[in-house]
Amino acid sequence: MRNIGLVIAYRGGDFAGWQIQKNAETVEGDLKQAIFEVTGETAVVYGAGRTDAGVHARGQRANFKTDSAIPADRFAFALNAHLPKAIRVMQSFEVPRAFHSRYGAKGKCYTYRVYRGKIEDPLTADFSWQYGYPLDVEKIRAAARDVIGTHDFKSFQAAGSSAKTSVRRVDRIEIEESGPMLILRYYGNGFLYNMVRILTGTLLAIGSGQLPEDAMPAIIAAKDRNRAGVTAPAKGLELTQVYY
Amino acid sequence: MRNIGLVIAYRGGDFAGWQIQKNAETVEGDLKQAIFEVTGETAVVYGAGRTDAGVHARGQRANFKTDSAIPADRFAFALNAHLPKAIRVMQSFEVPRAFHSRYGAKGKCYTYRVYRGKIEDPLTADFSWQYGYPLDVEKIRAAARDVIGTHDFKSFQAAGSSAKTSVRRVDRIEIEESGPMLILRYYGNGFLYNMVRILTGTLLAIGSGQLPEDAMPAIIAAKDRNRAGVTAPAKGLELTQVYY
Repeated sequence: MRNIGLVIAYRGGDFAGWQIQKNAETVEGDLKQAIFEVTGETAVVYGAGRTDAGVHARGQRANFKTDSAIPADRFAFALNAHLPKAIRVMQSFEVPRAFHSRYGAKGKCYTYRVYRGKIEDPLTADFSWQYGYPLDVEKIRAAARDVIGTHDFKSFQAAGSSAKTSVRRVDRIEIEESGPMLILRYYGNGFLYNMVRILTGTLLAIGSGQLPEDAMPAIIAAKDRNRAGVTAPAKGLELTQVYY
Repeated sequence: MRNIGLVIAYRGGDFAGWQIQKNAETVEGDLKQAIFEVTGETAVVYGAGRTDAGVHARGQRANFKTDSAIPADRFAFALNAHLPKAIRVMQSFEVPRAFHSRYGAKGKCYTYRVYRGKIEDPLTADFSWQYGYPLDVEKIRAAARDVIGTHDFKSFQAAGSSAKTSVRRVDRIEIEESGPMLILRYYGNGFLYNMVRILTGTLLAIGSGQLPEDAMPAIIAAKDRNRAGVTAPAKGLELTQVYY
């Protein structure tokens, strides 16, 4: 069988997340249905990241096996014809038979957008978290530097997670100011469930003075979810890229 | 009576345009209703620009007269409590009694976003025009320079317009590339009905080679709507700022 790789973008607010569910529209479910309509085959769709309800993706990756003879690069157009507008297959291509979107991933980039303003801008409201407290961006930059490296990120994992280990490596956090928008880009070898959202909530708590500016190392060391900040809302988060 | 000035942002896709209509939701209509709910008064809302259905605004301006004693800066919060999320009053303040948002405007900035890619990005689809033909940005820049100045822009006016004169002054067109997005910012003393959308359609026709690269001066001189390019879709357009 051939193995087809996909790059997928979607608007998270339209779906109950990536993972297939009964009685709810999901990205995986819609893709599986579109593959069936194009190939007549019931495929398993392997996604790189199981994004939550509301989380957007610009560079989600997936793959599926098929016996169809459709040229690999035509799958994008064929699948898009059977997908809602809120999901687009941006690219499709042949990948090696053993390629697996999730197990093969070497790293990921997530982007979190924060709108700094008392009144939420309706043009960006679906893609950012409106944060009304004044933020000291230099404090956020300093605290972000404390996150870099290989740590046990148990403090930044949603309660009840089942990951075998909570050790992850964060390579880089880029912080960009673009007018009222504060954009945080997280690069790492993998992220725990809700990890980017809890890191963002914690960085903003430090930036707004709700937590001390030197709090980050102790929060990491505590391995206790209760020590970190709130889980930032899903709508501000985007899975930007997956690295192989 | 006091005169209250507003800066308003809205997501155009949610409305049948600015101007009040029976049996359709409009920004002016929603504002008038919100003012009534806050003050108990039936006000006339004077808007700076009557944006079309689908056109977004980040810096629309309006004013209304009131006898209410509410502090001017509180109107933003009070009105927002009675407006749909797709409209936000970003600022409110006292303006001189004679101030009129439309007649007092000295200039405007409109932004048009073009998504250059074969497949439309679902995260920006509501705010840009997906243009599949390859574009030569240098040709667009050169043609945009021919637009600058005071001209009779009759070729760029929707058929059936009732403006007294079609002479307008375009001060500047900024063209910015941001990844797949091509952003055109138009600054001028005023724009005819559909003028920015027809200018954009014409610039893109030149950039894609559908019109000769030196076509712009002759199109302007012709004063004939049929000589210009298509009217670019409303959803790519935003009223960015109004100058007084």
